[in-house]
Amino acid sequence: MELVGQWMNAQGKRGRRAGGRDTRATLLAAAREVFTEQGYDAATVRAIAQRAGVDAAMVNHWFGGKDALFSESISLPLNPAEVLGHLIEGDPEQIAERLLYTFLRVWDEAEGGQFVAMIRSVTTHEAALRALREFVVSMLGQLLARLGVDQPELRASLCGAQIIGLGFVRYVARVEPLASAEHETVVTAIALNLQRYFTARLDASSGT
Amino acid sequence: MELVGQWMNAQGKRGRRAGGRDTRATLLAAAREVFTEQGYDAATVRAIAQRAGVDAAMVNHWFGGKDALFSESISLPLNPAEVLGHLIEGDPEQIAERLLYTFLRVWDEAEGGQFVAMIRSVTTHEAALRALREFVVSMLGQLLARLGVDQPELRASLCGAQIIGLGFVRYVARVEPLASAEHETVVTAIALNLQRYFTARLDASSGT
Repeated sequence: MELVGQWMNAQGKRGRRAGGRDTRATLLAAAREVFTEQGYDAATVRAIAQRAGVDAAMVNHWFGGKDALFSESISLPLNPAEVLGHLIEGDPEQIAERLLYTFLRVWDEAEGGQFVAMIRSVTTHEAALRALREFVVSMLGQLLARLGVDQPELRASLCGAQIIGLGFVRYVARVEPLASAEHETVVTAIALNLQRYFTARLDASSGT
Repeated sequence: MELVGQWMNAQGKRGRRAGGRDTRATLLAAAREVFTEQGYDAATVRAIAQRAGVDAAMVNHWFGGKDALFSESISLPLNPAEVLGHLIEGDPEQIAERLLYTFLRVWDEAEGGQFVAMIRSVTTHEAALRALREFVVSMLGQLLARLGVDQPELRASLCGAQIIGLGFVRYVARVEPLASAEHETVVTAIALNLQRYFTARLDASSGT
């Protein structure tokens, strides 16, 4: 997990607030904050640029516009191909555990603001829905394809349901004790279930 | 399940489109449709009454106003106490199966419109968040209390995460194959996992 954590920090935080050293990453971080606070429609390119401390023209330079910035800002702040590599390494029977620690670490930043922004957007903006589907179908689908299990599409949507449900209850509805539970408590409670969606027989009355 | 189904039909559908025979239920059904289509802010009491084919004054008469109508319309169209009774009867090891069939039957009406409306509202309207928390904490909590298992609050939030995640992927994100899968396929794939949150040890590396 440590490798994944280091890598994610490198991806997600590099250049944040670094004042021009990595304008693109700074803009993405600012966009996540502003979209979370104000929603897609109310958030302006000017406000995001201001939050990032850069000129508004940088948004067009780096992203081409508000829609593309939004789309990228609600994607996970990590590179799916590299995360996939880290997840697929090691014991396939602990893949759910690695995935849960990864998501909790990413999502817990900004008190789940990014997840809340995605959920808030997903029912009204096609870009958000696309990002979510991409996560479920593409990233989880690839992971399952590498595991070589049966019914990869069904498994991907089941894994997606468990992961999104966790995020929803923890960050959106903030139902206790799941909302404040330590990562280890959450992973211990959920990993076995998520793992079943990855590798166990789905049509059996027993989980193994 | 048949009893639950009959009871739910009686609760959820009685009087729908029946032209005055059960104005309250007709208004609730119309409210679900209009809130789903237009969102809370844009939906008017007049539009809902018109859809129901009754006078707008009936909304105040039966619900006291738009907010209360909204709150009730996004709650499950069933009486928690009675559903609890049906769920608690029978084999405790099949409680997840009974619960999943119940929700799929309720939510599949109007292509999941009620669930979509709840999710769309939950990040912006306190009434929707309250209804969702009430479902997780109150209904699932009571169910778990009757089962007499340990950590009922944690289990309730875990059960809620699995159920909401299923609804999200099936009705909001519409990720296939879960979006179109037959009830039996969904229940077979998920019941064992949900059942673990109800009755299995949560701190063990084995599910039983």
